[in-house]
Amino acid sequence: MAKNITPRATNFPQWYQDVIAAGELADNSPVRGCMVIRPNGYGLWESMQEKLDRMFKETGHVNAYFPLLIPQSFITKEAEHVEGFAPELAVVTQAGGKELEEPLVIRPTSETIIGHMYAKWIQSYRDLPVLINQWCNVMRWEKRTRLFLRTSEFLWQEGHTAHETYEEAQEETLKMLGIYKEFLEDVCAIPVIPGAKPEHEKFPGAVTTYAIEAMMQDKKALQAATSHNLGQKFAKAFEIKYLGRDNQEELAWTTSWGCTTRMIGGLIMTHGDDDGIIVPPRLAPLQVVVIPIYKTEEEKLAVLDFADQVALRLRAKLSNLKVKVDYREDMRPADKFFTWIQRGIPLRVEIGPKDVQNKGGMLVRRDNRQKVFCALEGIEEKAAEILENIQADLFKKAGDFMRENIRPAETYQEFKDILAGPGGFILAHWDGTKQTAELIQSETKATIRVVPEDEKDKPGKCVRTGKPSSQRVLFAVAY
Amino acid sequence: MAKNITPRATNFPQWYQDVIAAGELADNSPVRGCMVIRPNGYGLWESMQEKLDRMFKETGHVNAYFPLLIPQSFITKEAEHVEGFAPELAVVTQAGGKELEEPLVIRPTSETIIGHMYAKWIQSYRDLPVLINQWCNVMRWEKRTRLFLRTSEFLWQEGHTAHETYEEAQEETLKMLGIYKEFLEDVCAIPVIPGAKPEHEKFPGAVTTYAIEAMMQDKKALQAATSHNLGQKFAKAFEIKYLGRDNQEELAWTTSWGCTTRMIGGLIMTHGDDDGIIVPPRLAPLQVVVIPIYKTEEEKLAVLDFADQVALRLRAKLSNLKVKVDYREDMRPADKFFTWIQRGIPLRVEIGPKDVQNKGGMLVRRDNRQKVFCALEGIEEKAAEILENIQADLFKKAGDFMRENIRPAETYQEFKDILAGPGGFILAHWDGTKQTAELIQSETKATIRVVPEDEKDKPGKCVRTGKPSSQRVLFAVAY
Repeated sequence: MAKNITPRATNFPQWYQDVIAAGELADNSPVRGCMVIRPNGYGLWESMQEKLDRMFKETGHVNAYFPLLIPQSFITKEAEHVEGFAPELAVVTQAGGKELEEPLVIRPTSETIIGHMYAKWIQSYRDLPVLINQWCNVMRWEKRTRLFLRTSEFLWQEGHTAHETYEEAQEETLKMLGIYKEFLEDVCAIPVIPGAKPEHEKFPGAVTTYAIEAMMQDKKALQAATSHNLGQKFAKAFEIKYLGRDNQEELAWTTSWGCTTRMIGGLIMTHGDDDGIIVPPRLAPLQVVVIPIYKTEEEKLAVLDFADQVALRLRAKLSNLKVKVDYREDMRPADKFFTWIQRGIPLRVEIGPKDVQNKGGMLVRRDNRQKVFCALEGIEEKAAEILENIQADLFKKAGDFMRENIRPAETYQEFKDILAGPGGFILAHWDGTKQTAELIQSETKATIRVVPEDEKDKPGKCVRTGKPSSQRVLFAVAY
Repeated sequence: MAKNITPRATNFPQWYQDVIAAGELADNSPVRGCMVIRPNGYGLWESMQEKLDRMFKETGHVNAYFPLLIPQSFITKEAEHVEGFAPELAVVTQAGGKELEEPLVIRPTSETIIGHMYAKWIQSYRDLPVLINQWCNVMRWEKRTRLFLRTSEFLWQEGHTAHETYEEAQEETLKMLGIYKEFLEDVCAIPVIPGAKPEHEKFPGAVTTYAIEAMMQDKKALQAATSHNLGQKFAKAFEIKYLGRDNQEELAWTTSWGCTTRMIGGLIMTHGDDDGIIVPPRLAPLQVVVIPIYKTEEEKLAVLDFADQVALRLRAKLSNLKVKVDYREDMRPADKFFTWIQRGIPLRVEIGPKDVQNKGGMLVRRDNRQKVFCALEGIEEKAAEILENIQADLFKKAGDFMRENIRPAETYQEFKDILAGPGGFILAHWDGTKQTAELIQSETKATIRVVPEDEKDKPGKCVRTGKPSSQRVLFAVAY
């Protein structure tokens, strides 16, 4: 077991911090609440970006860039929006050596400034739909921060679309929720539960907010992405009007949707073990590391030559940047193993003098440590197969864990017993009021995560008040 | 000629603005001096990023992300650095509803905060070199701004490396200058002249600054990228120390290098014509647009079917996203041509009923408008060949133009006559003093762009003062 990482069972939050430090994924910065994303962590974000960006583009979206700074007055134009974001704003009051006439806020999200530009660009139904995404940094001043999970500055993408009808906007909102689910499950091997947020947990300014929720190994919930149908609220506030097919002036229907560097925190807490992060192969910027093992100069020559042959085959199959040979001279093999384990690299290939003799290498999985000797001939096919197995096994393991830890509660006593005992997600009836949700939260710390689609129209009685409920919702203690 | 674009000969600066508006490349934002990069312009930046990023990674660099906000005190730690940047800072004084104890500046560049982190991460010579790059936004409050060329906020990459020796740092500085040159010439088809900046034009805090300069069609110079050898100045200010191979504590040697969204402005002014931007094929996110031309329903069916066959072949050769069929129903073909011309798409394929009969399509180059009919069979090879020809022709044309407009000046009268007459770059002797450079600038507006390597050790007399000069330098009026 890694000495630099606290075991999960001992202290899960400390384990999380230790994993980030051991894998050199991120670091605290001299500015309180802001993080430095180190190359090992940033590589994960780049890989997430690349895969999501392709999915966005394949569904007709294009990227653009809007200003970091937003006039303070913009934020106040949508009443719920300002109420939600005002307490978290960072404000620029001086620039170029002078006090600004109007303070500028660092974007906490860009609905307002993008709404302003859309009003200028959109004139006719022919200009619709507008399907724009932006990759950028945003700032929400947080009191209590944790690397990746909650930081004052974070990186994200924010999609902003405008449509002719409510139906189109709703379709877009659900389409993007589906893309997030597909990405998290297929690429990150993180099983998620999609659904609508209750009214009181909506994005400030949304008509409906949808989210996907994942279960961490401590059985707490993590909101991994959100997609909002904004109705005509921002169109009204920013006058996004267009001449309709019937020659009448109409307000556009808009959506927004986003996911953030927080997903890296979710990745760590879904798959990590007591030795550190485990990166699913489809996400891994580096999939295989080849480690030469030798003592004498003679062995060294033979081993390095053979390791290069192995790498050549692997690179031909997996691409150049996915395979690395660890040539470092001033480090023992065991220390090299340790380094790559703590960085979560899915597969390690050990090449020693005996392996050279036997014309093959030892393939070692990061997730379950299984070792298998494999001949040079065909090693690239075997490695690719093992990588796909790791991907599938990680997803199955996380899925089994989540399913085992979703429990129904018929009574409030059952509800509290679950939270005090095994923990996890709870399916329970709720009377639909903010008051009851807040009461449950103050008594148990559990919040309503989503209103799952497949629970719709199954009436019952609220677990807390006994009042009528139209369906069960998903409760959990959340990050 | 395009009615929405002022001809270059009439008013070059207006032409530049018109081209950006016509191609929907960027827009002014409600925040003074900050720009909105629209999808057509952002696609160019994404393409630049993709290609440069690959070149950086192939030379061993990795990406990371450092905070947007920097404590004000950090900027003051390096004396020249603060002098250079203090007047341009945007300052956050309030956050989370409170006045901050120490104001935070929005990064104008990140040497200081990265230096702070490097001091923490680098302990031993084993930790060196550190080769990190960052893609991000930066803020320098400008009084007079122009889209892409000079904006208060812009996007860029900034590489920051740390090394054991001066020689290694110098090698890195020149290597990255070489990568910028290769990228601009091979991908953007923009010929450039590399060289060192004179002492008084260095980056604030650098030992030596290198730059590459391009010539725009108005014969003014544009600095397209810079690479700085920072010596031990920032290592000293931020205590980036390491235990050397000889067990002695040493200061690291650092470099930084960057290029920005300004390159998009350079691209426009190098290749654009009176109808708009022309994008070199290797950079173009979209290389070919297929335009179906029909009148009757019967023609429509045949033409669309054939256009799809053409697109299929082109996509197989050029990749999916590089080819688009313009299916729009409510637009005349001539208007479609016009749209794609103004977006600078390198190649257009026209497919009308006669082309269907002749089993081929008309290929039309954006740069010189040459048309050639090409049979369906092999159209993908022909298109690829034409695209490479466009790339080569754009580079040759720009190179010829630049070479024709670099003139030597032996006397100050000649110097002034060139600027008053043909304009362009001037090779002339200079006595090496800031005073003389400033005198020449105040009298002619020309500044020293670079000290070209191939002019080294060719002594003469300063064109302005007659004092001894060790070599000729490159003067120009610059953006």
